[in-house]
Amino acid sequence: MSRKPGSSQVSTTTTGVPPESTSSRSLRSGIVHLQHGLGYASGSRHTAPCHNSRFAVAGQAGAAGTGRMDAFVFDRDTAVRRVANGVWAGELSSRWNAGTVPNGGYLMAIAGRMLCASVACPDPLSLTGHYLQPAQPGPVTGQVELLRRGRRVSFAAVTLSQRGRGAIARFTGVFGDLAQQTGETRLEGVPPRLPPPVACEPVEPVAIEVAKRFERRVAPGVGAWLGQGADARAELCAWVRFADGRAQDAHSLALSADALPPPLLAVYGARGWTPTLELTVQIRARPAPGWLLCRTRTRYLTRGLLENDGEFWDEQGELVALARQLARFAEPERPPLGLGDVPPSVSG
Amino acid sequence: MSRKPGSSQVSTTTTGVPPESTSSRSLRSGIVHLQHGLGYASGSRHTAPCHNSRFAVAGQAGAAGTGRMDAFVFDRDTAVRRVANGVWAGELSSRWNAGTVPNGGYLMAIAGRMLCASVACPDPLSLTGHYLQPAQPGPVTGQVELLRRGRRVSFAAVTLSQRGRGAIARFTGVFGDLAQQTGETRLEGVPPRLPPPVACEPVEPVAIEVAKRFERRVAPGVGAWLGQGADARAELCAWVRFADGRAQDAHSLALSADALPPPLLAVYGARGWTPTLELTVQIRARPAPGWLLCRTRTRYLTRGLLENDGEFWDEQGELVALARQLARFAEPERPPLGLGDVPPSVSG
Repeated sequence: MSRKPGSSQVSTTTTGVPPESTSSRSLRSGIVHLQHGLGYASGSRHTAPCHNSRFAVAGQAGAAGTGRMDAFVFDRDTAVRRVANGVWAGELSSRWNAGTVPNGGYLMAIAGRMLCASVACPDPLSLTGHYLQPAQPGPVTGQVELLRRGRRVSFAAVTLSQRGRGAIARFTGVFGDLAQQTGETRLEGVPPRLPPPVACEPVEPVAIEVAKRFERRVAPGVGAWLGQGADARAELCAWVRFADGRAQDAHSLALSADALPPPLLAVYGARGWTPTLELTVQIRARPAPGWLLCRTRTRYLTRGLLENDGEFWDEQGELVALARQLARFAEPERPPLGLGDVPPSVSG
Repeated sequence: MSRKPGSSQVSTTTTGVPPESTSSRSLRSGIVHLQHGLGYASGSRHTAPCHNSRFAVAGQAGAAGTGRMDAFVFDRDTAVRRVANGVWAGELSSRWNAGTVPNGGYLMAIAGRMLCASVACPDPLSLTGHYLQPAQPGPVTGQVELLRRGRRVSFAAVTLSQRGRGAIARFTGVFGDLAQQTGETRLEGVPPRLPPPVACEPVEPVAIEVAKRFERRVAPGVGAWLGQGADARAELCAWVRFADGRAQDAHSLALSADALPPPLLAVYGARGWTPTLELTVQIRARPAPGWLLCRTRTRYLTRGLLENDGEFWDEQGELVALARQLARFAEPERPPLGLGDVPPSVSG
């Protein structure tokens, strides 16, 4: 059950080929593309060089990165630019909506980009989001506050605001360099025993925007997952990857961690949804390219409050993230779908 | 496995008798005593009246509460007072030190008092702490920021600072009224199967201050818990209560949730300690008076980063809190003890 650091794999898989090249555009607009700017888009988890100096630091000039990654929709839709000292701008795309509202993990991914650039660290080690009110597609501003810059880890917060709506979310995080992270490794938990993606059943996207951005596969027979009643287990295991072939990285994990339907729907079906109050994602490793193996679970629903716990492994079996959120269980007069969609075989 | 809201128990147990009465002092000094000011110190979880108007709100006059609770050391040592609009003051006592540093849950309890009073909500629903640098016993200042005041829940953050040291911690939280919290209850997890406190073995306090403030009892035979090696499970189950008889409430849970030794010590023994980077506590119910049943566990230590997960039930078997922290596993040249002590039968 225990794995030493030395046994960790170094991926040799390459990322998908971007469907178009738009690097010149990103350089012109000064948009930050953290992943490529760090030179670890090759998928190497431990050997990639880390060039902190290529980060935009709040108070310095704005942009970094070669921009090749903005060929992928995640990168285009999470691009941020520094507009003043500690002030960042971005654009919330409707492509990541759950219902009419941008997904909370999507907001976290944008916030993570602003924060990492501000603290000059390549990776979030943890991100915590407090969701103050529903966001809307459109321009968004981030006001960054540096809390502490340390030798090993740094801390910072950002408040996302939208014109006419005020603050919509606050994100606070711990930042570092996962490539430099050393120490013991010891695992008591194991990934879910799911057949390989090729032997699983695809979950076709339904009419929810964020669902269309991902490919999801579940074990054969899981089509009966939704609304099984009180005896069901509020748990969902699935393979997840970006529909356009973009590789996962430390920045996309926050979004991917929030891209599955709430596990409580296994019990209550479409009669409930679960708006997030607080979401914390611990990022433990830069994931290898490929599928993400996910298990989400709710064990304690108490008077309408619940946790949604997620565990995430990369395709090489390495634990890459833990997520937990506090959410409300909202009853039926509201839209039935929260953070994702439901398997179509049982929703129709 | 499922429990409906209507079946929840209302406690009839009374709190312990304070060893002294110091109400006049607290009224003179304007110190806030949230618990008593709300009238739920009787231990009733669901029927106690909630008088939000008795809270000190940032921007209004400072203090509330009858002060009877300050006879207990927890209440004295977490008392806070408003000194200006959005600015609070308190005093970090060395009585809650782990080593030379005040325990992180203790800082959270003080922050929770400042925040609840500021947002005029009786209960934290969740508190997240980011620990920027070690605190020291002595005066502490809290700068409160109201993020959103809503009908059902409110959000606020506070930065704790100490003179000459700057910011030591940031706490962000979601606040509401647990007495008004309604909705489904459904439990898939169960409390640990521990003999009742009377049949468990006391863990005598060692020379760590925070340990002296609690009575802890573990199952017979658990004395061999520490340093069992790689095959051990990094888990600890225990009964916990305040040594001076103070009842638990929503404010003391944050501290109690951080009062057990790091579960990883079951494996590594005294060679490691685990400084906290981020701690989130979800508070699900006001606990009934009496013992708190605790289970803490670390399943994933990855290159020196780990989660410490806690589940907490009150003596009537109700889930009252979940806690998770991101911590570093620090190697032996540092003090061996992190957030608590270790059973004396194996530490001596």
